[in-house]
Amino acid sequence: MESDDGEVPISGRGVAKVLDSRHPDYKKGDFIWGITGWEEYSLITATETLFKIHDKDVPLSYYTGILGMPGMTAYAGFYEICSPKKGEFVFISAAFGAVGQLVGQFVKLLGCYVVGSAGSKDKVDLLKNKFGFDDAFNYKEELDLDAALKRYFPDGIDIYFENVGGKMLDAVLLNMRVRGRISVCGMVSQYNLEQPEGVHNLMHLVQKRIHMEGFLVYYFYHLFPKYLDMVLPYIKQGKIVYVEDIAEGLENAPAALTGLFAGRNVGKQVVAVSRE
Amino acid sequence: MESDDGEVPISGRGVAKVLDSRHPDYKKGDFIWGITGWEEYSLITATETLFKIHDKDVPLSYYTGILGMPGMTAYAGFYEICSPKKGEFVFISAAFGAVGQLVGQFVKLLGCYVVGSAGSKDKVDLLKNKFGFDDAFNYKEELDLDAALKRYFPDGIDIYFENVGGKMLDAVLLNMRVRGRISVCGMVSQYNLEQPEGVHNLMHLVQKRIHMEGFLVYYFYHLFPKYLDMVLPYIKQGKIVYVEDIAEGLENAPAALTGLFAGRNVGKQVVAVSRE
Repeated sequence: MESDDGEVPISGRGVAKVLDSRHPDYKKGDFIWGITGWEEYSLITATETLFKIHDKDVPLSYYTGILGMPGMTAYAGFYEICSPKKGEFVFISAAFGAVGQLVGQFVKLLGCYVVGSAGSKDKVDLLKNKFGFDDAFNYKEELDLDAALKRYFPDGIDIYFENVGGKMLDAVLLNMRVRGRISVCGMVSQYNLEQPEGVHNLMHLVQKRIHMEGFLVYYFYHLFPKYLDMVLPYIKQGKIVYVEDIAEGLENAPAALTGLFAGRNVGKQVVAVSRE
Repeated sequence: MESDDGEVPISGRGVAKVLDSRHPDYKKGDFIWGITGWEEYSLITATETLFKIHDKDVPLSYYTGILGMPGMTAYAGFYEICSPKKGEFVFISAAFGAVGQLVGQFVKLLGCYVVGSAGSKDKVDLLKNKFGFDDAFNYKEELDLDAALKRYFPDGIDIYFENVGGKMLDAVLLNMRVRGRISVCGMVSQYNLEQPEGVHNLMHLVQKRIHMEGFLVYYFYHLFPKYLDMVLPYIKQGKIVYVEDIAEGLENAPAALTGLFAGRNVGKQVVAVSRE
C-alpha cells in the first residue's frame, strides 16, 4: 500500500468504500473492512487482508472493533480454544480491554459466571455496572492475587482468558479446577520487561490436567461468518454493550492515538476520516 | 486392602493370580495387574484398580511396566495429547525414564525424529545405541540448553514430551515450532525445590499458537485395549526394546527399592514374589 507521493502511510484497521476495483470480488460501492491507511483515499493491493461488509444495519465503525479483529479475537479465544459449557466459572484478566469486555459478555450470554480484573476503580465499576460482569477487582489493590482469586472463585476457575501473564498467571494456576482451560491471548504485563517474570506454578497443569493454548486471531477468520451469525442479532437486540470514542477527522487522529497511551479514550477509539 | 493381621502392606503395581474371588468379573485362575500389596497373598477389595490379563504370550512382569501404567502413560501422553504426525520433530526430557524410553520408541515406530535428554553419558549412549533415538544429550554437560536444542533441532521442535520443567521448559519454548504441542507428564526437576523455578518464555505460546496440556494416565485407561492392540504385536516382533531388572523374592524388595534412588537398577525394577 503506497500513497501517490511514494510515502507509505501508517496502516491500521479501517472501514472503507470501494471507489474503483480491478479485483473480481470487489466492485464499486462495496464496503470493506481490513488493513487500510491513515488517509482519505487508499490504493489497496493486499486484498487478502480485506473482508466485504454485507450487513450495514449496524454502525460501519463497528467493523473496526466488535465486528472486526477484536470481536473475532474474543470469539475464537473463548469459544474455539476454551470449549465453554454453561455454568462454568470464567476469569478474564485485562478485562476492560477491547477483547476482554467482549469475552465477558459472551460468557454471560452463554450462562457462565464471570469475574474480570482491571487496573483502576473506574474500570472495575464499569465492568460490574455497565458490562454485566458478575464481579471485578482492581489487581493493583490486591497484595495477594491468590487470596483475591480464592475470594471471587471459592470453587475455582474453569476457564481463564489470559491477557497479562506473570504473577497473575501464577495465581490463576493455583486456583484452576480440574480439566480447566487457559486461552492465552496475550501477556501484556510482560512485553516491556527486560526479562519476563517467571511463572512458578506450571506443575498444576499436570495434576489438574489443564489445557493451555496460545492463539492468533488470523487463523480463525474462516469462522467470521459464523461469528457474525451469532453476534449481529445480539447487537441488534441491544444485548451487547459496545462503546466507541469517535474522533472526527483525520487531523485529530494523532491526538487520538497518543490519547490511547494516556488512557484518555472511553471505549474503542475510532477516527472518522469521512462519513457516508 | 488389608492383610490378615490388620497391618496395611506397602502397595504397588503388581501382577497376581486370582486364587479365590467373589467378584463376577474375576474367577479362580485369572491373572490380573493393578494395585497389589508387597506380600505373597493379598485380599483386594479395590477391584476398580485391577485389569484382567488376557494375553499371556509375553512375560507377565511386563504388565507392571510396558503393558501397564508406564506404557499407558507413554501412549496417552504421546498419541492422545500430542496428535503426532509422521515426520515431526520430537524432544523428550528425562528420556531414559520408564516412560521416556517408550515414548521415544513409539516416536520412531511412527516415523518421526526423536532426541532425548538424560543425566549421564551412559544413559545418552543407551538411548542412541539401544533404544533407537536419533540423538540424545546429557543436559548436565550443556551450559546453554537453548544452544543445545538449536543444535539438535535446527528446524525446531513440533512435540515436546515434558518430564522435567524449569530451565529445560524455558529453553524448549524458545525452540518450539508453530502449532507445537507440549504434553506435560511431569516436572521432576521441580518437585524437591522449596520454590519451583520460574518459566519465563510462556509468551511463545501465543505467537507460535502452542497447545500445552497436562495429563494423568488414570483418565486414559479406557484406551487400554487399543494400546494393547498396538503394542503387543511390536513386542512379539521384537520391535520394542524393554529392559527389566528382576530381584528374586520379596526379601530382596527393600534393597531393590533403595537401589532405585541410588540408580543401581538397569531397566524397570521388578520384584518376583513368586513365579507360575
